[in-house]
Amino acid sequence: MNAPLTEPSSTTTEDLGHQRAAIAALGHELRALVDATVRTAAPAEALHRMTDEVRRLTGRLTGRRRLRAEIPAVDVFPGGVRMYSPVTGPGSPLAPPMRVTPDGDGVVGHCTLGIAHEGPPGYVHGGMSAMLLDELMGWACYGAGTPAMTVSLRTRYHQPVPLETPLRVHARVTGTEDRKIFVAGSISTEQDRTAELVTADAVFVSPDPDRARALFPDGAP
Amino acid sequence: MNAPLTEPSSTTTEDLGHQRAAIAALGHELRALVDATVRTAAPAEALHRMTDEVRRLTGRLTGRRRLRAEIPAVDVFPGGVRMYSPVTGPGSPLAPPMRVTPDGDGVVGHCTLGIAHEGPPGYVHGGMSAMLLDELMGWACYGAGTPAMTVSLRTRYHQPVPLETPLRVHARVTGTEDRKIFVAGSISTEQDRTAELVTADAVFVSPDPDRARALFPDGAP
Repeated sequence: MNAPLTEPSSTTTEDLGHQRAAIAALGHELRALVDATVRTAAPAEALHRMTDEVRRLTGRLTGRRRLRAEIPAVDVFPGGVRMYSPVTGPGSPLAPPMRVTPDGDGVVGHCTLGIAHEGPPGYVHGGMSAMLLDELMGWACYGAGTPAMTVSLRTRYHQPVPLETPLRVHARVTGTEDRKIFVAGSISTEQDRTAELVTADAVFVSPDPDRARALFPDGAP
Repeated sequence: MNAPLTEPSSTTTEDLGHQRAAIAALGHELRALVDATVRTAAPAEALHRMTDEVRRLTGRLTGRRRLRAEIPAVDVFPGGVRMYSPVTGPGSPLAPPMRVTPDGDGVVGHCTLGIAHEGPPGYVHGGMSAMLLDELMGWACYGAGTPAMTVSLRTRYHQPVPLETPLRVHARVTGTEDRKIFVAGSISTEQDRTAELVTADAVFVSPDPDRARALFPDGAP
């Protein structure tokens, strides 16, 4: 793993590992807190006390906060670690987080979604399925050697995706045409990989270098 | 607003209002905590202390927690208040939350997304745009008198959607065919409503009553 260009030169690889581990540990506990708060049947008084405690806790996170578009020092961008990604980030309170591994000619994402990601009662929000697929299809492009951005994404919902059930997301590049990359994806449960609950096809495009520099001055994909 | 069928009969409308206000207040503070934690540049030791505090806080939320597919007593389902929706829920630490209002022949969603929903640096995750649209297009079906579920959703990304910028999502039903409902949607900024950054078209379907009962035993849409 290469050190990001934005990392202060004094940061050692060991320090970076400690920092990422601390971020992931906090992410893990925040996800547990999120799950507890969307499930609790506690009375209003208990929730108000909790609210005060959360406010106090946020106030303790003093010091510098990164600005919009600033790439965190712990990240590798483009094409690497994104600690706070809302889909894969171990430090994100919002992410499942999905773990991505290579798989034959594509990539596989592993995750389990909780009640915080609920759409219809007991099932994953349809938009969250699109989010998992959009993210993983981007990884498929990167895995195929062509980092790219989504131009269009079509998601088809065949069966509802269950909550609290290990899921398997799959994506692979199916073709290219100039700067366009065609990608296919699906979601199934780990238990029954053959039953595709959601399928998707997407068109990605490798960004034109000038446009990429304009959009991402700190590190173009 | 009608009281939900699942609500204990002893709960008064006033109690329900207090409970929802407490849930929304906690949701608000949790979103601030989420924002602070994905932006902080605090050192590992500070994050570890924070982690311990968050774990302690979660442990204080004792008592009964609702199960998967259980509809919260504060909700009205189908077609009403969803306090913990990951898109519109005032009690959700994950939701922007998007505020939905009627608009001529459709519905409009208002929200601002923070760094927690980042995809490319400085911009909204493409999957999150799909999530906003999927949710609002469902509201458009409901607003047209036909609650329905997504069968397919196609999202087209014309320009990146900026973070920390008031957004305007729009959706309206464009046609029907038997149980199928066709919906169009878009995302723009509040400042420039004419520039559509993302557009979408979707097919929804009013669920067959038998299938709906099987999927949602506690209250079919």
